[in-house]
Amino acid sequence: MVPKPAPDVTRRSEKSRRAIYAAALSLVAEVGYPKTTVEGIAARAGVGKQTIYRWWSSKADVLLEAFLDLADQTARPAGPETAGPETAGIPDTGDLAADLKAVLRATVDELLDPRFDAPARALTAEGVVNEQLGRVFVARLLEPQLQLYVARLRSAQDAGHVRRDVDPRIALELFVSPLAQRWLQHTGPITHDYTDTLVDYALYGLAPR
Amino acid sequence: MVPKPAPDVTRRSEKSRRAIYAAALSLVAEVGYPKTTVEGIAARAGVGKQTIYRWWSSKADVLLEAFLDLADQTARPAGPETAGPETAGIPDTGDLAADLKAVLRATVDELLDPRFDAPARALTAEGVVNEQLGRVFVARLLEPQLQLYVARLRSAQDAGHVRRDVDPRIALELFVSPLAQRWLQHTGPITHDYTDTLVDYALYGLAPR
Repeated sequence: MVPKPAPDVTRRSEKSRRAIYAAALSLVAEVGYPKTTVEGIAARAGVGKQTIYRWWSSKADVLLEAFLDLADQTARPAGPETAGPETAGIPDTGDLAADLKAVLRATVDELLDPRFDAPARALTAEGVVNEQLGRVFVARLLEPQLQLYVARLRSAQDAGHVRRDVDPRIALELFVSPLAQRWLQHTGPITHDYTDTLVDYALYGLAPR
Repeated sequence: MVPKPAPDVTRRSEKSRRAIYAAALSLVAEVGYPKTTVEGIAARAGVGKQTIYRWWSSKADVLLEAFLDLADQTARPAGPETAGPETAGIPDTGDLAADLKAVLRATVDELLDPRFDAPARALTAEGVVNEQLGRVFVARLLEPQLQLYVARLRSAQDAGHVRRDVDPRIALELFVSPLAQRWLQHTGPITHDYTDTLVDYALYGLAPR
């Protein structure tokens, strides 16, 4: 997004960008999306608002990139030594239940991380009542994550571990959406045991076999 | 909540209460929870704010009752001639899949009803960032509905249609939470086919049998 500048400019820019991301995330967590402004982000980051407008066109743009960066900084399914989940995909060890449990346990850890929780809540709450913003953030942030489950479930179909007639895009919701609802609506505790149980129920069904 | 008054007072009170419910729901849908005030509800309902404070102690109380009333007015799983889902429970015809599909189809219709959608979104969005309010509304509005699924799943366990080792309070989330997430976050279309599919996947699992 930033054209390649000379090395010393890059260092300065990188520092400003980090400060702007941190300011945007902390501000939206504190005052909510509607009261977050580019001016407010600039003031908190200690930069001029022209600096922000040089790189981004709106507060939504700043927040979107700040979140993409945050997702890269916080819990990663495949461990901190690898790239983020956006690029790494869900591991395929051949054991679908184990692979899904591992990635959902990492998601639990991320949801319980205060660095992620407060800004993600503020933005999700706004998306609930502001459909346009909600759709942009889902398309850029959430759906790419969900597509990793689609890929893993397709691979499981190829291996004969998931029925051919199952739609992976719907199937993933059986374990992803319960976790999302508990997190968003405080409808129940979020633990590794809980997500393990969701995976078992989803794969093997509730009915006797 | 209202002490039994003489019949003409009852009629007048009932009319005021309906006007207050309608005002509270339309106002929260338009301006959001934080900007909704008891004064604003009173002005829109054409009553003095003393009238509201005679019956309720806060805007949260008014909204809670307005929603309980709304849930009673909108889609009802067992048909309009019966009491609302709060009292009626989920039908038990002996066919668990059919019973769950019927109640989820009715929920789809309710979620797509603009009378319900806008105020429910406003309140849910506030609950995402205001944990105290969120927990009160979940405890009073959402959890009683979820407990109807718990009861139906327990009855299915007794009939041998659901495994004994399944926790019904978690199991219900496999079909309820995906619908909730699609509705709240605009992550996909909401249709009867979709909820039918969720029930089939949840009951019979994704793995080959």
